[in-house]
Order: sequence, then C-alpha cells, then structure tokens
Amino acid sequence: MLNQQFDHHIQQRIDQKTKPIGALGQLEAIAFQLAKIQSCRLNSATNSISINKPSLVIFAGDHGIADRGVSIAPSVVTQQMVGNFLQGGAAINCFCRVNQIDLSVVDCGILAPIASNDDRLLLSRLGKGTQDFSTQAAMTVEQVQQGISQGKEIVETLIAQGCEVLMFGEMGIGNTSSASALLSANFNLDAISSVGRGTGIDDKQLLLKQQLVQQGVERFQSKDVACSEEEHVIASLVELGGFEIVHLVGAFLQAAERKIPVLVDGFIISVAAALAYKMQPETREVMIFAHTSQESAHCALLSILDVEPLLDLGLRLGEGTGAALAMPLLRCAAEFYNHMASFESAGVTV
Amino acid sequence: MLNQQFDHHIQQRIDQKTKPIGALGQLEAIAFQLAKIQSCRLNSATNSISINKPSLVIFAGDHGIADRGVSIAPSVVTQQMVGNFLQGGAAINCFCRVNQIDLSVVDCGILAPIASNDDRLLLSRLGKGTQDFSTQAAMTVEQVQQGISQGKEIVETLIAQGCEVLMFGEMGIGNTSSASALLSANFNLDAISSVGRGTGIDDKQLLLKQQLVQQGVERFQSKDVACSEEEHVIASLVELGGFEIVHLVGAFLQAAERKIPVLVDGFIISVAAALAYKMQPETREVMIFAHTSQESAHCALLSILDVEPLLDLGLRLGEGTGAALAMPLLRCAAEFYNHMASFESAGVTV
Repeated sequence: MLNQQFDHHIQQRIDQKTKPIGALGQLEAIAFQLAKIQSCRLNSATNSISINKPSLVIFAGDHGIADRGVSIAPSVVTQQMVGNFLQGGAAINCFCRVNQIDLSVVDCGILAPIASNDDRLLLSRLGKGTQDFSTQAAMTVEQVQQGISQGKEIVETLIAQGCEVLMFGEMGIGNTSSASALLSANFNLDAISSVGRGTGIDDKQLLLKQQLVQQGVERFQSKDVACSEEEHVIASLVELGGFEIVHLVGAFLQAAERKIPVLVDGFIISVAAALAYKMQPETREVMIFAHTSQESAHCALLSILDVEPLLDLGLRLGEGTGAALAMPLLRCAAEFYNHMASFESAGVTV
Repeated sequence: MLNQQFDHHIQQRIDQKTKPIGALGQLEAIAFQLAKIQSCRLNSATNSISINKPSLVIFAGDHGIADRGVSIAPSVVTQQMVGNFLQGGAAINCFCRVNQIDLSVVDCGILAPIASNDDRLLLSRLGKGTQDFSTQAAMTVEQVQQGISQGKEIVETLIAQGCEVLMFGEMGIGNTSSASALLSANFNLDAISSVGRGTGIDDKQLLLKQQLVQQGVERFQSKDVACSEEEHVIASLVELGGFEIVHLVGAFLQAAERKIPVLVDGFIISVAAALAYKMQPETREVMIFAHTSQESAHCALLSILDVEPLLDLGLRLGEGTGAALAMPLLRCAAEFYNHMASFESAGVTV
C-alpha cells in the first residue's frame, strides 16, 4: 500500500489554495492522488506534481470467438485498425495529437502481423489470435505468463524513457466477449449481466454473445479448483482471456510496482485493471478512472471497484479514447496543485 | 434559427469516420454543432471546423446583497480575486494556461476599481456594486441597457481579434443570490428551490439567503406587468440583476448574432445564458454546456433548457473553470471531424 505519511502535507497544500475548500471537486481528488503516488515514489512530500511524457499504448490482439459472429466487424478489421493507428487516422490519433500524448501500438497476436518498420509498432506476439473460448481454452498458461511478463517489460521501457503517466488502449475484434467472460468468472457477476453490445451489435448477436460467454464461463467454472486469488485470475485468463488482455494485466502490475499513475480507459481496460487489482490489491492506488463507457457491464464493474470516473460522454469505441480525452484534466489538476496561489501569497481574505 | 441545409453533409461526414456510428457519443454531437454553426456563419458546408483563439472573459461585479451575509466571503474578495486573476494565481489562470485559452477580465462594477495598466483588464463599470435587491431595485434600466450593450461590444472586439470560440466566467461575492432570484423570476421556479449554497455557506446562511431571494422575487412580481418576454427579462435584471450578469446577457446575444460558439460554464453563466435564450430563442443554438456544477439549482436550470453538459466534476467555484476544463473536448471534436480517416481512405472494412 502507498505510504500515508505525505497525506497531511498534500491535503494542506490543496486547502490553502485561493478557492473554498473542496470547490474543485474531483480535480482535488486527482491532485491528491497524483501527489501521493509521486511522493511515495520519490519518498519525499512533493509540491510539484510531474506528469511528463504521457504515453498511451494500444494493445492489439485477435480472438477466436470472433468467428462466431459476436461483433459488428470481422477479425480482419483488427489488423486494418492497427494500420490506421500507424497512419494517424483513427480517433485515438486525433485525441493524442490534440492532447500531446505519445502513442504506440503493440501487436500482442493479431491474426496476420503487419509489415512495418514504424518504431511505434512493437511486436509482442503470443500467437495468431486466441482459440474460441466458448469451446476450449483461449491460450496456454505459458502464453498467459509470457504476456504478463511482456506487458511489464513494455511499461518498464516507457518509464525508462521518462514517461510519468500511462494510458492503455486496446483493439481486438471480439474482445468485449473475452472481457465479459473474465468479469463474470472473477467477480460473481452472472454471464448475461456481464455482456453488452460492444460497439453496437443487434439483438440477435447479443443473444448469441450471451450464450457463448455463458458457455465459456461455465466451462471455466467446471474446471475451477480452490486456489489463491492470483491463481484464479491466471486460470481464468488461460480459459477466457485475450492476448492483449494478458499484456494489460502485466502492464497494470508493473505501473503499480513502479508507482506510476495510470489513467484507466473503458470496459476492456477496466476489466484488465480489475484483474490486476484482484491479483495485487495495491494496484488500485495508481489507477485514475477516466470515463464510464456505454458498455452496460462497465457500470457494474465500476461499482465493484467503488470508483467514479471523470468523464461520461457516451463513448463506446475503445482504443483508449476515454483515457486520452481525460488527460487534460490531469494536467489541470497538476497545474493548480503546483502553481495556484495560496490565500496568503495572493493576499486574499480567508 | 440556424439554417438546416448543411445538416446532412455534416452528419454524413461524421458517419463515414473509422468508428461505429455514434461511438464517439457526445463528441459527435459537439462536432455536429460546431460544424453547423460555422457552416451557417460562412454560408458554406465545412469539412474543417476552426476554433482558433479560444477566449475566456471573466465578468466581475459587486452586489449590494452581499452586505447581508449571504456568502462565505466579504465583498472585498471580489477585488482581491480580480487582482489574483491578473497575477495569474487563480484556478482559472491554471486551467487557461494548460488549455491554451486567452483570458481577460472585465470590471463591470466592483466596489473599488483596481489600479492597473494590465491590458487584460477591461473597464466597463456600471457603478460601485448594485443595490441590495431584497429591498430595492438592483440598478436602473439605463444601467441594464448599457451593460448589455457593453457586453456585446466586448464580444465584438474579441471576434475582430480572431476569436472563434468563447467562454465566459464570473466573479462577484453575492452573485449566486442574484442569479437565483433571476432564475426564479423568469422560469417559474420557486425562490427556495432556486437557492443553493454557492461556494459553501452553512444552514443558517442558506435560510437567510432563501428569505432574501424570496423577498426580492416577490418585490419584482408585485411590480410585474404584462409585457413581452424581452421586456420581462429586462425588468427582472433591473430589480434583481448584477452588473456582471447584464454584461453576460449582452455577450451571449452578440455571440449568437455573430454565430460564434460559446462553451457555457456553471450556474451563474447558465442563468445569463437562459435569460438571453428567453429574449431570443435562437441564442440557444450557439451554446455548448460545459459542466454541471454543485449548485443545487443548476440541475433544474439545465432541465429547463433541456441540455446535458459535458462534464460533471463536482465543481462549485465559478470563474469559468468548468468551461476552461471542457475546452480540450471541443478541440478533440474538431480534430476528429477535420482529420480522422474515413472507412474508404483508411481501407477499413465497413
């Protein structure tokens, strides 16, 4: 857990700013959290939050279950969208440009790799897409361990490059199915309630998706044996996971280990965050939840985690778009913490 | 009313972007509104939204009612905070710096003017604070007319300097009382429901504030004669208004006249927006509502206007802080509208 010895200093600094106590609402909570994480990292009470080189990493992977028709688009779109990210044409590119966020893309195992020398594309492939989790294990335990380990390394590399705040995005046709199954299997939510319309499937597809997710979760539960929380999460990732999701779990664990704040995007990223939290509860302390997505089960998950995200804009796109849109709020929180006048310095009557 | 002839072109452009239809939620609505306003201004369907030189103007004024003890701070704080704005030490300075927004301050009639040569301070004084509206008219009809006229001129000057998107802020100890009274007097909301805790008064002050606002509204209603909507608004401003609020009404009217979008801040600014809307309903079309403030009556007002703001961060500060925080969302909306790839251009399967 993060050390509480800096809390009083940080709260005092916030309360002396030229505003009524608490008048900046959630921005004050963010400033507090950022200052606390950094103070614990540097082991020194800070008066200057530093969130340089914000980096957003999109983890991409393909899913065997996509062949069953649970998405609005075929699996080939995963690769096409990775190409779009590298070309700068996707929504996430637009938001990263405007908000000055470094963007990179990790191929965690899309069906066919992209031939590209672009240094923003990292290869971390665990295979050519997962198996269909409704009928068999999505991957091997070795693939899960390797993905978690590689996710950690990617974060470590970014930190070494000076990154002080992280965002994660995802791309993978079929990955809301996998995320829903993982949510159900790990957080006592029935399979039906954990499934939503993803980017916009119709009623017939929704029914099919619910059935397949339920089938996968029941398959997992039939194998489940008493074990530690961590072993349970790993086992669920083997049976129901996605290559991008196992990378994400590793990425969250490493961010927490290194005390680097993570602005958490929507449904899939939040599921990965929740799995990391289940494995190691202190992971929660570096997470700042960016937005509430339109995916119906996201609200349930946010309640489980007892968090209130910053934005609620009706997004259902993924890619990390919600996190990128929230980044300026972190900059504003840091700026008021660092540079806003105190009542004393401004000569304002308390 | 804005011409509808460009709607189809704009919606088509949004729907061809590489994302499921509607997946960017409220950002799509903003892009549509910005593109529509601009297309109508330039009389040409646009593929490139331009929101250069975003400018935030803080209108400051003092209020006779403040002497009655309805605020957490004395009137002298209005002047002190204007000084803080000019020194760059307030929350709004922090947010404007981070989000690259030009900031200026208008002295609409604070108790004692500030001696300053700072060219970001505009003098547009209507007097030395208003009269106590609970017992007498806050100002004369000539002051109302002059304030509206000067508010229009300030906006006209900014447009001449190249400003393509506006934000308004306010500073004035006691001004939530005036805003509550104006809301009650113009929108059939009882005085008690229209009054909130401002930046944080206690129960005793809240009761007093409710009584004084009710007294003022009843005084106004006892004088009220059948007249046009516009005359009703003007009469209410004479009896219950603030010098910054009359400027704001003029500023909204002129922004609408010139078809310049306005990102609308919290309670007091929304009341001024609603008054402009009541005078000239088409004013509504240039307004983009930035945030829901903690002030209890703000929600009621937003329902009356039938709008859903972008942010809900628990703010209760004023100064235009909510609008400044939302500005990056407008930039992101413009960027995706202008530069995001279409399915065709990116070679992504529809």
